[in-house]
Amino acid sequence: MNTTKESQDKNWIEEKFEDILSIRYRLKKRLFEGTSDFQKIEVVETAGHGKMLFNDGLAMVSERDEFVYHDMITHVPMFVHPNPKRVLVVGGGDGGTVREVIRHPSVEFCHLVEIDPLVVEGCRKHIPQTSKALDDSRVKVSIEDGVKFMAETKDRFDVIIIDSTDPIGPATPLFGEEFYQNVSSVLNDDGIVVSQCESVFYFLEAQVSLLKVLNSVFPKVHVYNYTNMTYPGGLWSFSFASKGLCPLKDFRKEKVETSGLDFDWYNEEIHKASFCLPTFQKKKLSGLLSEFGSY
Amino acid sequence: MNTTKESQDKNWIEEKFEDILSIRYRLKKRLFEGTSDFQKIEVVETAGHGKMLFNDGLAMVSERDEFVYHDMITHVPMFVHPNPKRVLVVGGGDGGTVREVIRHPSVEFCHLVEIDPLVVEGCRKHIPQTSKALDDSRVKVSIEDGVKFMAETKDRFDVIIIDSTDPIGPATPLFGEEFYQNVSSVLNDDGIVVSQCESVFYFLEAQVSLLKVLNSVFPKVHVYNYTNMTYPGGLWSFSFASKGLCPLKDFRKEKVETSGLDFDWYNEEIHKASFCLPTFQKKKLSGLLSEFGSY
Repeated sequence: MNTTKESQDKNWIEEKFEDILSIRYRLKKRLFEGTSDFQKIEVVETAGHGKMLFNDGLAMVSERDEFVYHDMITHVPMFVHPNPKRVLVVGGGDGGTVREVIRHPSVEFCHLVEIDPLVVEGCRKHIPQTSKALDDSRVKVSIEDGVKFMAETKDRFDVIIIDSTDPIGPATPLFGEEFYQNVSSVLNDDGIVVSQCESVFYFLEAQVSLLKVLNSVFPKVHVYNYTNMTYPGGLWSFSFASKGLCPLKDFRKEKVETSGLDFDWYNEEIHKASFCLPTFQKKKLSGLLSEFGSY
Repeated sequence: MNTTKESQDKNWIEEKFEDILSIRYRLKKRLFEGTSDFQKIEVVETAGHGKMLFNDGLAMVSERDEFVYHDMITHVPMFVHPNPKRVLVVGGGDGGTVREVIRHPSVEFCHLVEIDPLVVEGCRKHIPQTSKALDDSRVKVSIEDGVKFMAETKDRFDVIIIDSTDPIGPATPLFGEEFYQNVSSVLNDDGIVVSQCESVFYFLEAQVSLLKVLNSVFPKVHVYNYTNMTYPGGLWSFSFASKGLCPLKDFRKEKVETSGLDFDWYNEEIHKASFCLPTFQKKKLSGLLSEFGSY
């Protein structure tokens, strides 16, 4: 990846996508680079998109738009669950999801399980915008394989967020049935699991695969969309699976209003709108999405 | 634009964006190139995104995702207006918007006014997916300045669609107050005008400018969002202005159901969801958006 001559231009950092697309960000400064047991990690400062994290040449976080991803992966389940006290985040070593989780005053404990120490190190050193939350007293950071953790932990959680990369490389088992059987065991009875669920335009087959797995384990399975400025194709999804809670029927917009929390992206209308899918996606996912309770 | 060494790589066609971002598509074949009085026009075949149209180095149309843009610019106003018979499209020489307009059986006449003959020529020759509609018997194509046309025409329309490029170059006057005063005169009493309204992430100031203009002319002004796979940042908007019709209160979902039309993107839920804006956009546009009628 990123080995062609043109991609090594020192003025740009490049994400090559499936050899059909190349997205390059104007580089101001390289801040951090290292290769872990799992992937190559780079943190750079760009002109126009702030600091950015790249894993194996794929843009993961930009300071400019990370609020969108982190609002949507976090606040959708957190405002559906009636009282989320214990939250588990798998992946997400940049800290952005944890930052949003602990804004909810009901949260007593947030456990981050990230497989790659270099992600945490690079972000702690250079992207405090997301990583500062990792120092909060309610947060525990474990550098550990999320698959192994999920199989072995005796702990229980109200909300689990799978803040993973794509189903290639270290994240592959995070898309499998065995993993989600364990997620179900680790979730309390009114639990919700939200997972990064890939590109609507480019990876609809991957959405189908993950939803089949979720359907084999959870009674309620939904998908919601959001726009990611720095992910190819712009439109990406999260899956929402639960043991019973409905993301619309059990969503209380009053909770958003009375929370006193102010989000740059998320609001009660965005919450509902994100579950409205374009026709081609609805057709492709037909039979894999639960009905909504009346709301 | 596109003059640096790396952008001339023969394997890619590049859109440079504000010198902070470069988006490159894998090139299979260059099909058409010419320079008009207004801009440089290129039609290419890409690997992964089908044929694409570039105006002055900016991606305008890709065969892969043009259905999203054309569904959203067209069907939102067409399903709000109770009986759209006469439709005017300014810009949009690729033909995609006209294609969607004439799918509505109520339409008796669709006039396309495009300033640049090379856009129409390039698309007629190489992108029949959008341009084939220009041969329909209900369609008239005029190669003419839309600003001049709007000032001089004695014709009247139910829906006007401003399918323009950005407010730089030939499209600049299409974002001005004088133009929209004329649009108002050319619109029938229950008329709607929808316009390309720029990037949510990158050009919020341009949205503010256009909405101020629209507010000075029209009693009802709204904005709705959609995701564009090949426009920088992914999230883009259309403005919706009318002499009275509300895009939600006057939207009849039954019309979509009974139309017998099948869209890959648009559906009644997407219609409503597209008017739900993220918080930072709502705040920035505060005071410039009309209240919705109850629906």
